[in-house]
Amino acid sequence: MTSPPADDWLIVDALELSRWDRELLLELREGNVSCVHVTCAFWESARDTLSRLGQMLSLIRTNADLVTHVRSVADIENARRSGRTGILLGFQNASPLEDDIELAGAFHALGVRVVQLTYNNQNHVGSSCYESADAGLSRFGRLVIGELNELGMAIDLSHVGDRTSLEAIELSQAPVAITHANPRWFHDVPRNRPDDVLRACAARGGVVGVCIYPLVLPEGAGCDWPQFRDMLLRLADQIGVEHVGIGTDFARKQPAEFLAWLRAGRWTRQPQDVGEPAWPEWLPTPAAFPQLAGRLLDAGFSDSEARGIMGENWLRFFRTVFQEEGACT
Amino acid sequence: MTSPPADDWLIVDALELSRWDRELLLELREGNVSCVHVTCAFWESARDTLSRLGQMLSLIRTNADLVTHVRSVADIENARRSGRTGILLGFQNASPLEDDIELAGAFHALGVRVVQLTYNNQNHVGSSCYESADAGLSRFGRLVIGELNELGMAIDLSHVGDRTSLEAIELSQAPVAITHANPRWFHDVPRNRPDDVLRACAARGGVVGVCIYPLVLPEGAGCDWPQFRDMLLRLADQIGVEHVGIGTDFARKQPAEFLAWLRAGRWTRQPQDVGEPAWPEWLPTPAAFPQLAGRLLDAGFSDSEARGIMGENWLRFFRTVFQEEGACT
Repeated sequence: MTSPPADDWLIVDALELSRWDRELLLELREGNVSCVHVTCAFWESARDTLSRLGQMLSLIRTNADLVTHVRSVADIENARRSGRTGILLGFQNASPLEDDIELAGAFHALGVRVVQLTYNNQNHVGSSCYESADAGLSRFGRLVIGELNELGMAIDLSHVGDRTSLEAIELSQAPVAITHANPRWFHDVPRNRPDDVLRACAARGGVVGVCIYPLVLPEGAGCDWPQFRDMLLRLADQIGVEHVGIGTDFARKQPAEFLAWLRAGRWTRQPQDVGEPAWPEWLPTPAAFPQLAGRLLDAGFSDSEARGIMGENWLRFFRTVFQEEGACT
Repeated sequence: MTSPPADDWLIVDALELSRWDRELLLELREGNVSCVHVTCAFWESARDTLSRLGQMLSLIRTNADLVTHVRSVADIENARRSGRTGILLGFQNASPLEDDIELAGAFHALGVRVVQLTYNNQNHVGSSCYESADAGLSRFGRLVIGELNELGMAIDLSHVGDRTSLEAIELSQAPVAITHANPRWFHDVPRNRPDDVLRACAARGGVVGVCIYPLVLPEGAGCDWPQFRDMLLRLADQIGVEHVGIGTDFARKQPAEFLAWLRAGRWTRQPQDVGEPAWPEWLPTPAAFPQLAGRLLDAGFSDSEARGIMGENWLRFFRTVFQEEGACT
C-alpha cells in the first residue's frame, strides 16, 4: 500500500450526524477533513430546528480554532487554508420548512445549504424510500424545488422515494446530490438508490456519496475493503468517476435512544429495528480518511480520480449549486 | 309546497367554517340546527390548533344559552332537548397531528371528534384531491387510521385524494364520512367525489354530506333547487338514501383574506383562484334549514327519508363511530 497522500488533498464528508463535541471535532482535524455536511434536522419542526441550528452555531463559535461555518465554496477553501474543518449545515427532511414556502429563505439566511426532500416517511413535499408507493413531487414539493434552486441550496435525495427522486432531478435547474447512499445493486435495500436514479443524478451533474452505514452495506460493518472497493470501481464505471464522492453517515457517540428516535420518530409506537451502528475496520472514524485516500490509489484510481472521490467532486458540485453571493446572506 | 316540518326534526350540518359570533349562533338556533360540525384547523400545526380550539371553547362557554360542546351522541340529544346547537369540533387536515401518533389522543381528550386526512395538499398521511398523483395512505397514515378508530374519532375524506380515500375506507374499522362534497357526476371537479369512493363509503356504512359551496355546484350559487333536488334523488338511488346527509360548507362572515388563505395557505406565493362564496337562494343561511326539510318532502322523499337526510343519518353515523365513553375523556 502506498503511503497516505500529502496533506494538500481536499477531503469532504458529505454526511455525518454525530453527537458533536470538541473531541469529535479534533478527530475531523486528525482526518484532515476540510468540509463535513452535518445534519441539523431529521423530524424537527421549524421551531425545533432553530434550536438545533443554535446549538451547532454555538459549537462552531466555541471551537473556532478547529471549525468554521460554511456558507459558500470560499468558506470551504478558507477552512482548508487555515487548517480547520468547514461545517456545512443541512437537513435530512423538509420538515423544518413546514408548509411555508418562505421558510426556505429564512433557513438559507441562517446558513443552511442542504435540504433532503424527505426523511424516512412521506411528507408534504414527496415520498420516502420506505413508503410502499410514491406519487412523486406534490404541488408544494414542486415549488420547494424552485425555491431551493433560486436560493442556491442543494437538494439531497438519499432517503427519498424513487419516483420523487426522478421528478426532482428532472425539475431541478441545478444538479442534485445523493449525499449518503450506495447503489441498490451493491446491497438491495430501499435506502440504496436504483440504477435509473443514479444515472439521472449523474447525467444532470450530481454527485453520489458512497456510504458506510451498516444498513446500506452487504454484511453491515463486516463489509471488507475489497468488496467496497469493487463497488466503487463499478459505480465509477456506471456513472462516471467525477460523480462519485463520500458521505459516511458517521453517527459517532450517539446514544441508542437517539438512534431509535431516528427510525421511530414520534410517528409510531412500534420500535423500529435499529442496531447501534458499527463501522468498517477500514474506515472506523473520520481520522482514517487519509488512509482511505491511499486505498483509492492502490485500487487503481488515478491521482485526480482519487482526489475527486475524496472531495474535489463535492467541491465542484457545491460551486455549481451554491450562490456565492446569496440574496439572503 | 308543504309547510316546514315540525320543530321536532333533528337537523345536523356536517360542515361549517364561519367566523363565529353570537349573531351566527342565533342564526343556527333560528334554523333549529341541533348539531353543526365546525372546522378548527385547515393548515394549522398542533400549537396553532390549540389556540383555535381555545377560541371555540371560549365561544361555547360565553354562549352557553345557545350552544354546547358535543363529545358524544348524548351531547347532541341533550342539545336538541335543551333547544341549543351542539358544536362538534373537527379538523379539515391531519396537520394538527404533526408527526406524532400521540396527538390524536390529546386532541380527542380536548373534545375533537372529526379529522379529515388531508386538506388541499399532500401531507404525511396521504394525498389530497388536488395533487396530480396519489400514492394512497403513507406508513404514518395507516397508523393514524387505526388510532382514530380506537379513539372513536370520525375520519373525513371530503378533500382527500381518490386512492387515499379508497384505502382509508378499506382499512378503517369504522364507517368513514364525506362531510361536505357532491358526486363528481353532478359537477366534474376534483373536490367532488367519484362513483367508486361514494359507493365504497356507503357500502361500509358511511355518510355523504351534500354541499352548497359554489365550487362544487354546477353554475356555482346559481345552481337552482330543481338541479340540486335531482342530484339528491339520483345520489339516494346510487348509494342509498340512508347514506345521504348535508354538509353545507357555509363560510359566513369570513373576510376575503381568510378565504384566500384557505387556498394558498403559506405553501405558495401565487394567489389561488377563489371568489367570495355566495349561497343558493334556496339555502342562503343556516336559518333556512327548516324550509329545506319541506323541499325534501316536496321532492318525493318520505318523512323518514327526509328526516334521515336532514340529520338522522349523521346521528346514526356518529353513534357508530364515537365511543360514548372515550378512554381519554
